[in-house]
Amino acid sequence: MLNNYEPIKVYKGNIVYSPSINRLTTLENGYIVVNKEEVIGTYQDLPAEYQNCELRDFGDRLILPGFVDLHFHAPQFANRGLGLDKELLPWLEEYTFPEESKFKDLSYAKKIYPQVVHALWKNGTTRSVIFASVHKDSTKLLLDLFIDSGLGAFVGKVNMDQNCPDFIVEDSNQSLSETLEIIQEYSKKSTLVQPILTPRFVPTCSIPLMEKLGAFAMDHNIHIQSHISENQGEVDWVKELHPESLDYASIYHQYGLFGHQPTIMAHCVFNTDQEIDLMAKSGVYAAHCPHANYNLASGIMPVRSFLEKGVSVGLGSDVGAGHQVSIPKVMTAAVQASKIKWLESGKTLEPLKLSEVFYLGTKGGGKFFGKVGSFEPAYAFDALVIDDQDLGTIDISLTERLERYLYIGDDRHILKRFVAGKEVFEPKKLPGI
Amino acid sequence: MLNNYEPIKVYKGNIVYSPSINRLTTLENGYIVVNKEEVIGTYQDLPAEYQNCELRDFGDRLILPGFVDLHFHAPQFANRGLGLDKELLPWLEEYTFPEESKFKDLSYAKKIYPQVVHALWKNGTTRSVIFASVHKDSTKLLLDLFIDSGLGAFVGKVNMDQNCPDFIVEDSNQSLSETLEIIQEYSKKSTLVQPILTPRFVPTCSIPLMEKLGAFAMDHNIHIQSHISENQGEVDWVKELHPESLDYASIYHQYGLFGHQPTIMAHCVFNTDQEIDLMAKSGVYAAHCPHANYNLASGIMPVRSFLEKGVSVGLGSDVGAGHQVSIPKVMTAAVQASKIKWLESGKTLEPLKLSEVFYLGTKGGGKFFGKVGSFEPAYAFDALVIDDQDLGTIDISLTERLERYLYIGDDRHILKRFVAGKEVFEPKKLPGI
Repeated sequence: MLNNYEPIKVYKGNIVYSPSINRLTTLENGYIVVNKEEVIGTYQDLPAEYQNCELRDFGDRLILPGFVDLHFHAPQFANRGLGLDKELLPWLEEYTFPEESKFKDLSYAKKIYPQVVHALWKNGTTRSVIFASVHKDSTKLLLDLFIDSGLGAFVGKVNMDQNCPDFIVEDSNQSLSETLEIIQEYSKKSTLVQPILTPRFVPTCSIPLMEKLGAFAMDHNIHIQSHISENQGEVDWVKELHPESLDYASIYHQYGLFGHQPTIMAHCVFNTDQEIDLMAKSGVYAAHCPHANYNLASGIMPVRSFLEKGVSVGLGSDVGAGHQVSIPKVMTAAVQASKIKWLESGKTLEPLKLSEVFYLGTKGGGKFFGKVGSFEPAYAFDALVIDDQDLGTIDISLTERLERYLYIGDDRHILKRFVAGKEVFEPKKLPGI
Repeated sequence: MLNNYEPIKVYKGNIVYSPSINRLTTLENGYIVVNKEEVIGTYQDLPAEYQNCELRDFGDRLILPGFVDLHFHAPQFANRGLGLDKELLPWLEEYTFPEESKFKDLSYAKKIYPQVVHALWKNGTTRSVIFASVHKDSTKLLLDLFIDSGLGAFVGKVNMDQNCPDFIVEDSNQSLSETLEIIQEYSKKSTLVQPILTPRFVPTCSIPLMEKLGAFAMDHNIHIQSHISENQGEVDWVKELHPESLDYASIYHQYGLFGHQPTIMAHCVFNTDQEIDLMAKSGVYAAHCPHANYNLASGIMPVRSFLEKGVSVGLGSDVGAGHQVSIPKVMTAAVQASKIKWLESGKTLEPLKLSEVFYLGTKGGGKFFGKVGSFEPAYAFDALVIDDQDLGTIDISLTERLERYLYIGDDRHILKRFVAGKEVFEPKKLPGI
């Protein structure tokens, strides 16, 4: 364990966090008291027992929980901002699969993956859930880079054994044995960085592969991530491939990959009410990726419907279909998208408020990691210190300062990053990719 | 005239510009030859007669036309990123009008307006069309700041004499006389910076005010800008206020404010086919402001319909309803919005390609200024030099480099800015607002 022998620390500043989707807690010139990795509490006035603890005073700056990204494709990093005049399936064929196949070569991974970790650090994403590629060695490299960085992450070796180009398709048995090797090697290596099962999506996974991955999840107590209902063409394809199944969700469910262990499903643009109910019942997380859904002309996830039915929702950059690593830029895109959804729905699905998406991008997604994404007692102290002075100093509330930073700030405004009580410094970034 | 005695200059680099909406011209290691303010031509090989001219070699960098913003509210600058959980009319009442009223005080304008000019410079917006506030002295200050900066702009004192709060409503005669004063003082002061008539929008302008402004436009040969059909509530209100009129556009048209001189109408989300036809026939420009239309939950302008009917379209940041000053961020938002419009329209309105919005944000809007926004012969040499090296150096085409820069670049990648042949250096920015 890190920090075991460090004493209690006190952080002072303008504290903003969201303990629930309907609530924003703000403390002007408040205190966060941290014991090793964990928050003891937040206080307007520092209790007497902590008066002699080490104090870091951030003055007029904001202190926010670190951002959480529930969906990120590391091997698509070099492709972000490219090929975005295409829809999902041709984009996969022409841009994504060829780029991902390069990660067979560990030396290519050594060029790109340090950039990925650096970009997450730079943008204040303290926890992320990552798709690697099908390649075992590159995936291990990425796990090691995260462990070295001090950031928190789930990293998954992708499984896919059908319906994809020869240069990237896996042999089913090898896919399973390599996945197992990674689980065994990395499950106990770090508390902050963990492997995760990563069947790409139904079309590229055979039934035996899904069955065995479902069994792995139970046997090894390991989290799961995949995609669902991103694009109408994809949904139609799944229906063709599995005419026996009720719907997309029930295929994952049938094979033990839908909430049997903590599970994230990315996109959720076209899920039926029945599927949403199953997600709520099974505790499956939805990763909302508005930029990617725009960019690939998929559509807009009806986030409000998921929230109303009690599904846990977080945000995803979905790099490379999403071009923005920054979770604040995903938050504002989520608000914008929800406004269009509101109009489309005849004003029945209420737009998301900025405070709601702030919750989704911190505690909402953070729950997948445990007590992460808030400054409530016992939460991991994942924090960002934000210097928003050059965004204007007119007299506005802390809530408005948060809003303004999320809309118009960028990585230049992030002064410090902490994960589980430890300051995280700039990781190595190899020059030029 | 500037630069009258400067010799011919040659700029070398990776040149990308868009001579028409369907075409992108790229020259790897090409040359742009410039005579004083104007482009003579672009060349893959430098013609013999220019071999001895002064050459600036930008190496592997991109050279693009400067960005053009057709719609920007300078006095809302300090409010960007605030109040965006509201729709147009309450947002005006609660955030915008109170902020704009502060510009009665010239000392407040002296704090904010230098930040505006600086932000445009920083983001590579070499030409912009600006709403100031109703206040004469602040508007003159803004005109002077633009003239000092070297950037190109139309700047308009807002006219509004009804249906707005007491603290900001104008007396009709004073509105007209102050407008006339500005026209007389500034029409011949600068070739790059010009006054523009700026009736805010139909609801806040009396019929006599609109009539007289229409007459001013003709008498003084002066351009016009206003808003149209941004929000359904606004459209309904206009119908209530003018039951005698066929539609929103015909009100402006009736009073000489709809293409009688070059005219920009911002937003155009809800225009009827008849109105779009009138815009095409009258040569009225549409300023497409996708971020603002998202943020105020207005809707999505069907840009494709306007293009198909031959309307001139440009892009607008619409700061402060739009939170992004950066025109590349408006371009990518325009592509994203058009994809949702494509889905909404049953796949009849084709999504905008990135090359198309690049045209809209350069030559499309630039036409409003004359020969601006392209590197064709006789165009003003408005240019940006872009260093995109840290966005990745994998082997991609110039078109892809442009795409990637527009999606994931920012102001940090802009190395140099030129307007009408002259390099524009960082303007003074007063610290903190």
